[in-house]
Amino acid sequence: MLGGIETGGSKWECAVGTGPDDLRAFETIPTTTPVETIGRAVTFFEREGPVDAIGIGSFGPVDQKVSSPSWGHVTTTPKPGWANTDVGGEFGRRLSVPVAFDTDVNAAALGEQRWGAAQGLDTFCYITIGTGIGGGGMAGGNLLHGLLHPEFGHIRIPHDTAVDPFPGACPYHGDCWEGLASGRAIEARWGQPPEALTGRDEVWELEARYLALGLVCVTCVLSPQRIVIGGGVGTAPGLLSRVRPQVVALLNGYLNAAAVGDGIGDYIVPPALGSRSGVLGAIALAEAL
Amino acid sequence: MLGGIETGGSKWECAVGTGPDDLRAFETIPTTTPVETIGRAVTFFEREGPVDAIGIGSFGPVDQKVSSPSWGHVTTTPKPGWANTDVGGEFGRRLSVPVAFDTDVNAAALGEQRWGAAQGLDTFCYITIGTGIGGGGMAGGNLLHGLLHPEFGHIRIPHDTAVDPFPGACPYHGDCWEGLASGRAIEARWGQPPEALTGRDEVWELEARYLALGLVCVTCVLSPQRIVIGGGVGTAPGLLSRVRPQVVALLNGYLNAAAVGDGIGDYIVPPALGSRSGVLGAIALAEAL
Repeated sequence: MLGGIETGGSKWECAVGTGPDDLRAFETIPTTTPVETIGRAVTFFEREGPVDAIGIGSFGPVDQKVSSPSWGHVTTTPKPGWANTDVGGEFGRRLSVPVAFDTDVNAAALGEQRWGAAQGLDTFCYITIGTGIGGGGMAGGNLLHGLLHPEFGHIRIPHDTAVDPFPGACPYHGDCWEGLASGRAIEARWGQPPEALTGRDEVWELEARYLALGLVCVTCVLSPQRIVIGGGVGTAPGLLSRVRPQVVALLNGYLNAAAVGDGIGDYIVPPALGSRSGVLGAIALAEAL
Repeated sequence: MLGGIETGGSKWECAVGTGPDDLRAFETIPTTTPVETIGRAVTFFEREGPVDAIGIGSFGPVDQKVSSPSWGHVTTTPKPGWANTDVGGEFGRRLSVPVAFDTDVNAAALGEQRWGAAQGLDTFCYITIGTGIGGGGMAGGNLLHGLLHPEFGHIRIPHDTAVDPFPGACPYHGDCWEGLASGRAIEARWGQPPEALTGRDEVWELEARYLALGLVCVTCVLSPQRIVIGGGVGTAPGLLSRVRPQVVALLNGYLNAAAVGDGIGDYIVPPALGSRSGVLGAIALAEAL
């Protein structure tokens, strides 16, 4: 029996089970202080367990390098109280089980590969478009790590200020991808949250334009076999149908691959696990231990 | 004994040996027709061999998927006469040796990892800034492949037309990275080739700005432990010293890694193998067979 946690900035999802068809227990915990939040999650696993291992897909930035002294830590997050919190180590000590620790988006990517929209692929991305923008995935069958871990949200994309004078919402970079296309950016630009803007063509065409520009960048750097788009904004009805033809137009025939060239194909897809890619992926992280 | 070939659009470099300290024979062949160019290279290996295996780092786009019916082919290149040329298969048949086939930039990346500036790293990039812009590298110890292979040159970067009204030189995308920052773009914008523009501060500051924007994108997507910059433009004296502080400024402290934060550090470096990364990497490809 395995445990999985997707830790987010506003809530944690905890589950016990072995996969999407065998989730024995599930709980959502609001993210408050580290002591309280971790304590409630530990109580959940004590009550619903025992589990043989726990996987954690964490909001970040994180240190997921197993050889590092700060392995398992959330590192430089601006979220009050959470910087330099040893999340991974705490679960290991309190539940006496092995812990796998990675980014929330790498966990979601793994979940989609194990049971969802990326089955059988070895090079692909999972990108969440929500309050922020983040990305993870695999290259050659390995989860994307490196110097740190990917930070897709902070690529710079073209920003035509004549069309969109909004200066961008990223506190670090202004008009990076996240600064222009995240849910936070949409709300700051239009004065209403994304879910209140349904049906406003100009909102979603601009959003699709920015998403397409970022996806072209990811495509040219990583050559993914598929891109899975999750998150509250990314899964808004009709959005991917607007994004796909813009990606095709931007690539302009340069990449000779039927999958990319097919504007309605299966290259850019929603997560098959819906909003549970992350917590199920955390279980898959535990399974891989 | 191993053979290596870096096939370029204007010349091929062929070598026999086992590494940088043991290059027994070397020849540069001008790229003309496929029949003539391949024929001259075969003659070189017949004369200087025998070799046990040959590695080829090829201009592209290429098909390097071993399971593919068009493995070993240069595919959609606009270079006259070369589209759909079976380069890899031809050497295998005519020299009766196993052939390893990959992109020129993946070969160069492997060469730098085997003997040069990326030794000991498992996630890094090799980017050539020359007539065009191309990139390769490794993620988790595997050369970057995927749906096709990376095409770093065609990412879209911010282009402030008030500062730089040049529309871009890429026939597919206009002002993509290659369209703004390649040697071809520099010559089209300023009316002189890069080597004639030495000492022109405005030329090289703009170039460094575009390179930095692209490198930030690569950094955020792949999180490389190091970026090796080769090519005739990329190795222009003083250029990387202009690029590094612009990368640091663009990241603006977001990535908590000393290596990236250090503006004069060893994050963005020239190739240790100079202009021979590609042909030596081709030998390393053969070695890995």
